[in-house]
Amino acid sequence: MSFLKALSGQNLGPPPIWLMRQAGRYLPTYRALKQQRSLYDMFHDPQTIVTVTKLPFETLDLDAAILFSDILTVLDGLGVPYTFQEQVGPVIEFQDFSLKKHAYQHIQEGIDLLKDQLSVPLIGFAGAPFTIASYLIEGRTTKNFLKAKRFLFEQPKKFEHLLQQVTEETCRYLDVQIQAGVDAIQIFDSWAHHVAYAEFTRFVLPYLDRVVQHVKARHCPVIIFSKATSLFAEELAALEPSAISADWNADLAEVRQRIPPHIALQGNLDPAVLYGSKETIQQATDRILRAMAGNPGYIFNLGHGVLPDTPYENVKYLVDYVKHHTILPVSA
Amino acid sequence: MSFLKALSGQNLGPPPIWLMRQAGRYLPTYRALKQQRSLYDMFHDPQTIVTVTKLPFETLDLDAAILFSDILTVLDGLGVPYTFQEQVGPVIEFQDFSLKKHAYQHIQEGIDLLKDQLSVPLIGFAGAPFTIASYLIEGRTTKNFLKAKRFLFEQPKKFEHLLQQVTEETCRYLDVQIQAGVDAIQIFDSWAHHVAYAEFTRFVLPYLDRVVQHVKARHCPVIIFSKATSLFAEELAALEPSAISADWNADLAEVRQRIPPHIALQGNLDPAVLYGSKETIQQATDRILRAMAGNPGYIFNLGHGVLPDTPYENVKYLVDYVKHHTILPVSA
Repeated sequence: MSFLKALSGQNLGPPPIWLMRQAGRYLPTYRALKQQRSLYDMFHDPQTIVTVTKLPFETLDLDAAILFSDILTVLDGLGVPYTFQEQVGPVIEFQDFSLKKHAYQHIQEGIDLLKDQLSVPLIGFAGAPFTIASYLIEGRTTKNFLKAKRFLFEQPKKFEHLLQQVTEETCRYLDVQIQAGVDAIQIFDSWAHHVAYAEFTRFVLPYLDRVVQHVKARHCPVIIFSKATSLFAEELAALEPSAISADWNADLAEVRQRIPPHIALQGNLDPAVLYGSKETIQQATDRILRAMAGNPGYIFNLGHGVLPDTPYENVKYLVDYVKHHTILPVSA
Repeated sequence: MSFLKALSGQNLGPPPIWLMRQAGRYLPTYRALKQQRSLYDMFHDPQTIVTVTKLPFETLDLDAAILFSDILTVLDGLGVPYTFQEQVGPVIEFQDFSLKKHAYQHIQEGIDLLKDQLSVPLIGFAGAPFTIASYLIEGRTTKNFLKAKRFLFEQPKKFEHLLQQVTEETCRYLDVQIQAGVDAIQIFDSWAHHVAYAEFTRFVLPYLDRVVQHVKARHCPVIIFSKATSLFAEELAALEPSAISADWNADLAEVRQRIPPHIALQGNLDPAVLYGSKETIQQATDRILRAMAGNPGYIFNLGHGVLPDTPYENVKYLVDYVKHHTILPVSA
């Protein structure tokens, strides 16, 4: 259980490894499953949640599983319709909320089954309020995120009201996961880097704080993933999560110095490195492993999810390399 | 000439202001011109370059003009075909280079005419080698920039060779602008935030350095604009440009502390703030003006270009506000 040990800063062995989107399209087995049904159906069927969550463990020696789900699952509870479209991704039809009780039974059931079957810790997750609220406005993933930003600047009070409602439902959703028995929660604030410092402190941080404190009050370890870690590491650390998952822009050694030693660090290989040769992958991985060598609160991961068109053998190479190459600290 | 004074850290009056993409689609007069011909033709006609460069000065009290051109102009000298397509933007057909002499006569002629007609300093510019080389690979603007990143990790030596060739041609192109009489050069490294620290130091910084030193050797002030300023301000400052233009993610007061006082600072209002109410614009502008009050090396600007659908009256309000509201330093 090196993952949970590292999360509490007490891992004396080699660093644990798991990968964001480790059960995804780069896996031939996942692609085969996906041809048979829609992504929406897959996310809503407990047995598929179990099967896909376990898929990477057939061939990869990973130290934690992450629930096969999407950050949009909270929209089930908020009563906002959404679909997943090929080439486009999620498409959200947001008019208003219509809160649904018992919206997360498939999640609860999936976690129940997984807890019986997994031999590694299970990570549950949710999107951070800012990222979800922005998604509601934007309707889909975009390049510049300008529709949500326009809304934020045009109607800041309305955006804050949206953030409050999303925050409350997110806490309810996380309660379901925690009660079902997940071993840790990761909060994805994937879009927080789209705003400047002033808006980060007003629209991102307070709501992220409420979610983090909610999870901590339930004695569940909580990891913040933010693509704004390199920008705002200190501010994220001040929320006192168990760990921060750094985006790939950040120099991990530098982030380590910016945050207190009792907060664990996760990350942060650029997923695009996995397009490169084994030599490229090894060099980039060594750089991270050396910077974090001997650190009892370090978890290897990417700086974002595995890219869908990543060659499977490169992911396999990375996992084996991290697991089986002992890197000693530079200082004696 | 408060702009040039600020660039050399000697401006004792209120901060000068100019805006990236100040001659662009938010201007009704520009939209009218653009209906008549293609963007490619506009960029290649000296008289249009003059007309458009001067357009914002009809109604806005700006302290510097920037040449109406595109960072892709260097492709004229590299002999790489490109077009501008509605809704899509630039489309580049890159096979190989076929260097063209005298490719920049329209630019030279435009600058000659402008120098006679303008009463403010004229800024010339070029894309940074990393941004241009990536554009060549990517072919167009994209969300994640993955094609260029894949190339970079798959074929790093080939990418470096590309960077070298682009760097040489960029220096030649800047020589044309400097000899024609521009008062300062801004280098746009608009895509440098797409890479991690290791790749930033290998593929971005050395080539940016060569361009900056080339301009400095010709005794022309040089500004680096980078969307990675908030991430790598120290590394950019180490190149000793005249000024750094900060992206809008950055907290300007913090960037000011991270870079030496003799390097001027430009920026960095989030362009999306201009979607907001006058109150929103005023508050965000005040925050910046207060942080920079009394600084003799500060130039007001956005953190990126004016967004095409920005209401003109909001830009007008911003410029008037910066020019006519005296903000005193907080300390007495």
